[in-house]
Amino acid sequence: MLVRLLGWMAALVAASLSPLAQAEDGYDLWLRYARADDTRSQAIASHATALVTTGNSATMAAIRAELQRGVGGLTGGTIADSQSVQAGALWLATPEAGAVLPVKTDGLGQEGYAIRSITRDGKPVTLLAANSEFGLLHGAYHWLRLAQTGASLDALDIRSAPRIGLRLLNHWDNLDGTVERGYAGQSIWDWWRLPDWKGPRYTDYARANASIGINGTVLNNVNAKADSLTAPYIAKAAALADIFRPYGIKVYLSVKWTAPMELDGLKTADPLDPQVAAWWKAKADEIYRAIPDFGGFLVKANSEGQPGPQDYKRTHADGANMLAAAVKPHGGIVMWRAFVYAHDNPDDRAKQAYSDFKPLDGRFAENVIVQVKNGAIDFQPREPFHPLFGAMPKTPLMMEFQITKEYLGQSTHLTYLGPLFEEVLRADTFAKGKGSTVAKVIDGSLEGHRLTGIAGVANIGADRDWSGSIFNQADWYAFGRMAWDTSLTADAVARDWAAMTFSPDPRVVQPVVAMMMGSREAAVDYMTPLGLAHIMATGHHYGPGPWVSNLARPEWNPVYYHKADARGVGFDRTRTGSNAVAQYAPPIAKMLSKPETTPERDLLWFHHVPWTYKLKSGDTLWDAMVHHYDLGVDYVAQMRATWDALRPYIDAERFAETQSFLGIQAREAKWWRDACITYFQSKSGLPLPPGSAAPAHDLGYYEALSFPYAPGHH
Amino acid sequence: MLVRLLGWMAALVAASLSPLAQAEDGYDLWLRYARADDTRSQAIASHATALVTTGNSATMAAIRAELQRGVGGLTGGTIADSQSVQAGALWLATPEAGAVLPVKTDGLGQEGYAIRSITRDGKPVTLLAANSEFGLLHGAYHWLRLAQTGASLDALDIRSAPRIGLRLLNHWDNLDGTVERGYAGQSIWDWWRLPDWKGPRYTDYARANASIGINGTVLNNVNAKADSLTAPYIAKAAALADIFRPYGIKVYLSVKWTAPMELDGLKTADPLDPQVAAWWKAKADEIYRAIPDFGGFLVKANSEGQPGPQDYKRTHADGANMLAAAVKPHGGIVMWRAFVYAHDNPDDRAKQAYSDFKPLDGRFAENVIVQVKNGAIDFQPREPFHPLFGAMPKTPLMMEFQITKEYLGQSTHLTYLGPLFEEVLRADTFAKGKGSTVAKVIDGSLEGHRLTGIAGVANIGADRDWSGSIFNQADWYAFGRMAWDTSLTADAVARDWAAMTFSPDPRVVQPVVAMMMGSREAAVDYMTPLGLAHIMATGHHYGPGPWVSNLARPEWNPVYYHKADARGVGFDRTRTGSNAVAQYAPPIAKMLSKPETTPERDLLWFHHVPWTYKLKSGDTLWDAMVHHYDLGVDYVAQMRATWDALRPYIDAERFAETQSFLGIQAREAKWWRDACITYFQSKSGLPLPPGSAAPAHDLGYYEALSFPYAPGHH
Repeated sequence: MLVRLLGWMAALVAASLSPLAQAEDGYDLWLRYARADDTRSQAIASHATALVTTGNSATMAAIRAELQRGVGGLTGGTIADSQSVQAGALWLATPEAGAVLPVKTDGLGQEGYAIRSITRDGKPVTLLAANSEFGLLHGAYHWLRLAQTGASLDALDIRSAPRIGLRLLNHWDNLDGTVERGYAGQSIWDWWRLPDWKGPRYTDYARANASIGINGTVLNNVNAKADSLTAPYIAKAAALADIFRPYGIKVYLSVKWTAPMELDGLKTADPLDPQVAAWWKAKADEIYRAIPDFGGFLVKANSEGQPGPQDYKRTHADGANMLAAAVKPHGGIVMWRAFVYAHDNPDDRAKQAYSDFKPLDGRFAENVIVQVKNGAIDFQPREPFHPLFGAMPKTPLMMEFQITKEYLGQSTHLTYLGPLFEEVLRADTFAKGKGSTVAKVIDGSLEGHRLTGIAGVANIGADRDWSGSIFNQADWYAFGRMAWDTSLTADAVARDWAAMTFSPDPRVVQPVVAMMMGSREAAVDYMTPLGLAHIMATGHHYGPGPWVSNLARPEWNPVYYHKADARGVGFDRTRTGSNAVAQYAPPIAKMLSKPETTPERDLLWFHHVPWTYKLKSGDTLWDAMVHHYDLGVDYVAQMRATWDALRPYIDAERFAETQSFLGIQAREAKWWRDACITYFQSKSGLPLPPGSAAPAHDLGYYEALSFPYAPGHH
Repeated sequence: MLVRLLGWMAALVAASLSPLAQAEDGYDLWLRYARADDTRSQAIASHATALVTTGNSATMAAIRAELQRGVGGLTGGTIADSQSVQAGALWLATPEAGAVLPVKTDGLGQEGYAIRSITRDGKPVTLLAANSEFGLLHGAYHWLRLAQTGASLDALDIRSAPRIGLRLLNHWDNLDGTVERGYAGQSIWDWWRLPDWKGPRYTDYARANASIGINGTVLNNVNAKADSLTAPYIAKAAALADIFRPYGIKVYLSVKWTAPMELDGLKTADPLDPQVAAWWKAKADEIYRAIPDFGGFLVKANSEGQPGPQDYKRTHADGANMLAAAVKPHGGIVMWRAFVYAHDNPDDRAKQAYSDFKPLDGRFAENVIVQVKNGAIDFQPREPFHPLFGAMPKTPLMMEFQITKEYLGQSTHLTYLGPLFEEVLRADTFAKGKGSTVAKVIDGSLEGHRLTGIAGVANIGADRDWSGSIFNQADWYAFGRMAWDTSLTADAVARDWAAMTFSPDPRVVQPVVAMMMGSREAAVDYMTPLGLAHIMATGHHYGPGPWVSNLARPEWNPVYYHKADARGVGFDRTRTGSNAVAQYAPPIAKMLSKPETTPERDLLWFHHVPWTYKLKSGDTLWDAMVHHYDLGVDYVAQMRATWDALRPYIDAERFAETQSFLGIQAREAKWWRDACITYFQSKSGLPLPPGSAAPAHDLGYYEALSFPYAPGHH
């Protein structure tokens, strides 16, 4: 009997190992729940002897399933469902469940949770308490994270609740399955076969997002098609909403301003036209009939060719408020993007969003939030924080980060965005004196706003690994974690991610985190050091193009941004130039008014300085620029060596993919360095500093390179 | 100790079941090697006690790995590698390996194999013998198929060798990752990250193809970009060739005729210009340096806007022979497509390929093969065989089937193509008297050609399940099996596929095969019964469009094909019409010259007949047409019921996907039926026969439907 049992189990083990699908291919993200070593496994099992829950909602079923999956994977055992609290139980409870809880849930809101190790009838128990099942869901993922990362499960006393209300992904996904600035394959939304076919990936998407606290998703590209508001597409969105609902994730839609004209033949899209308002109201009613908890609309208007209220001589506020009135009876909101610049406005592009929106402060309806990119240009490797943050005290402002790395190496460069997020969130606007950080602007605490939000442009596609590379998954992860808790450090988040994604073994976590933490600065160094920006090649933004000067609109050309000439380099945004610095609060504006007081990392963003300008290090600007390019290249070489040494600890497929991508990154970092140095040298006329290698080719070579099939550009 | 072992195994089992990746998601295709029941498992294990092989080539390693994977999955055990033949061994040998084999390998060629149960030194052994390692590879897959399908492994005496030399997939994959007529996501070729990143999917692609005997793949769309011949893209193709080589699969490229002009500024692409010929020779040399066993070129020229030799007043033969000379020193070939029709030719489109190519018979170089679609129009649900088959005795002709279902329901209709392949291959051309089947034309036996080929336009994409649906995998499978052995029946192939893909349990195989076998006829019925053709909607070919009459070229319009009017319907291709029937051999031409002797399934392809024309059944044409539309809809309803009853036997994900797609198919079959009946009734003016339901909407409704985001149309 025992022999037969052994034989059967051996067979099952062998069978389970044989099919193709079982490799570590990245699909499981940070929710791998790989078998823990014996010590950890026993520790986890001893804190999960039973699972005590109440209720049969889809959310509770999801929580139980996730805990079973997690504990099952980590320990090889199962957790028995139990009605009563026993020693070592995980006890999940809300006040509504009737029990008087030994943990207060005040202040946790509808999404937060507390986890505490308590004694109940003399038995040690882990209590997870929250005001709602969504709170329990987030708490369950927190507990599983502790288990996955090898943290102690003893003597827990955790309270966590998000400071920011809307934590959203923005999908720039088109209805034809392409993804604008997507580097991970087609859209994960199978629009064509929705609402009929609802594959399991949608549920895994919801699990992944819920595990990091994301609570909403804008399904379609901000460059929207009117079709997304037709009945068939509303039904498709509703099918997704049904899947996401148990995970506390709402769906939102981007809308095209002229939809009433395109879909129903209205003569105008003037927001003050009653027929237009009535159309949107009826459309909102139609959507809410299909999706009762629909989140609301995201709007890109009067930007980059998109139509908008200004076409009718109305303001952004007129437009936003009309839409807001349509969704307000249903509890919906409008997210109105501040990313605008006009082809007929000769002013510094960096100033235009502020110029357009600052005068509208206080004129938006209460269910409107203005969505502002982290910087004033466009998701560059580094930008100073956007001057609108802190400048519109009467208006809720929402952060827009770009998780997909349009400008930071796309799918193959390892450039962890955690430090970028951290840098922006901690930037001090001085709007109400020192300590007025961007984080406090967007969490509403600075001005007492209750409608608060943060969005990340998703890096998710149909590629098996979701994000185009294993390390790109870290950016999705970091966005969610830091949106939930803006006080988290990029380092702490990277540690959790590395432990969950690869192994909690410090021989893995330490070097992986070390690679990640310097990687964004390395990209800044080999692409756009010292405040350079937007010198990428045309359209696809793949690779360097500092020489580009032939595009129709001035602000599309790299030369517009760096203004390199024989005298020097950089964009004068002081009073002698565009005076964009005046858009910042006085202490910042003053600091930025002179090169000497401007942080050197932002120097060329704000100043045109001579090639021989002396930096604090004593180096000339030219020498320092070359040095930064070299540093970036060197860092990538260092990452390659670090990764190669990790081979014994990483599964074969993920090891090989990352190794291959680091090879691409090394080649491309050198290409960036060589091309940019060659180009800027043609302006500076200066020799390379000693020890810096000559570029591999002449400028003509780099200028002639062309990449007609670069991805993400539609 | 035993307890610990048990605990460890239980843990491993549980762990192996927990991660996301382990569901049956279709990725494993027909190579699932799912655990067999005890009886089968023991039978398999008893015939695989040891694996005796010689040699350490990559091909031998692939064979060993596949047998390990297969036997491991099916039985839970492993096969030990052994140097000597023991009882129950699998013994793989080629004559070159030195041993005098007890099985003759004469006549097996370089790809065939023999499998025989023999006794060696008194021990029962299964000998797999072949002239080459590729033969052993195919034989190993044959043996594994027997094991997977529950066939007996005793007393084997099998000999198999392909009659057709080139058995290729044609990928209509574009360099930007889209796939023309692809319904399974993006291209599986990650051109952007090749040649650096070579993911495991490429190997699985090679395994799947090798398992069904496919030995070549044309990587890029016949609507080719010149860029595919640049150095970077040659390097990418070479990386794929390196992966496929051990599996006996060569790579080929589609070429754009004007590549010498586009890439290197030549002033002409005239095939008789020495500079043009020199350019292609140098390009071929460059390719062969990177890919020594490169297969050759596929060309679409002077067709649908593609450039070609006729632009220079040269013939297709002039063009093909110039390219052939470039690849000949390297052993390469040229596949020249006969799919041509000219915008300035008012003749029946169905006649034009024959008219262009028949006069060129005997004028092609010996390493040129002309690739002819199965029918004279374009991959319709049913077409009579192409009149070129049998009409060019001095020229090798290659079959082009379309595996991707551009006109047969795309990704969501279950329409098994095996019966279509079988019908075409067995069609009798009468070129050299009765029995001159299409199969004999393309296998070279009819005219003694040694260069022989068959191609299928792939239905493969980056979707997890490869082909857009589980059942679409059967079309890939059937193409390969029937290309290897044109005498196989669609039914036998379906049985193997169903057993391998789902389960050899007859409670599964019987109903699944029953569904499949009638499904293509059902599609003919609900789309284009009685010889109708090409009445699909414009461009994407999704759904019905018999009313379309506004396209620029006459032969793009459905009304061109059905010619329905008050008097009747159908295309007169007899002497009173286009006389296309004269392109067939006299016995066929005579049969087709009158409606009464024309097979009714092809009636409207060849004749314009009155609505009241009496069919053999006694029904009028109109009543019969409606009846066929009803039959098609009814068949889909029947498939749904059959599938629903299979729920206990099919894993959840694949069951749900198929159930969902059958729901789509049922809705769309009814749409096809209703729209076509409504339209044709507007011409016939006749009432529906008794018992036939009125269409759901009026004609205006169907005409107004539009699908701007239908997939596969680029």
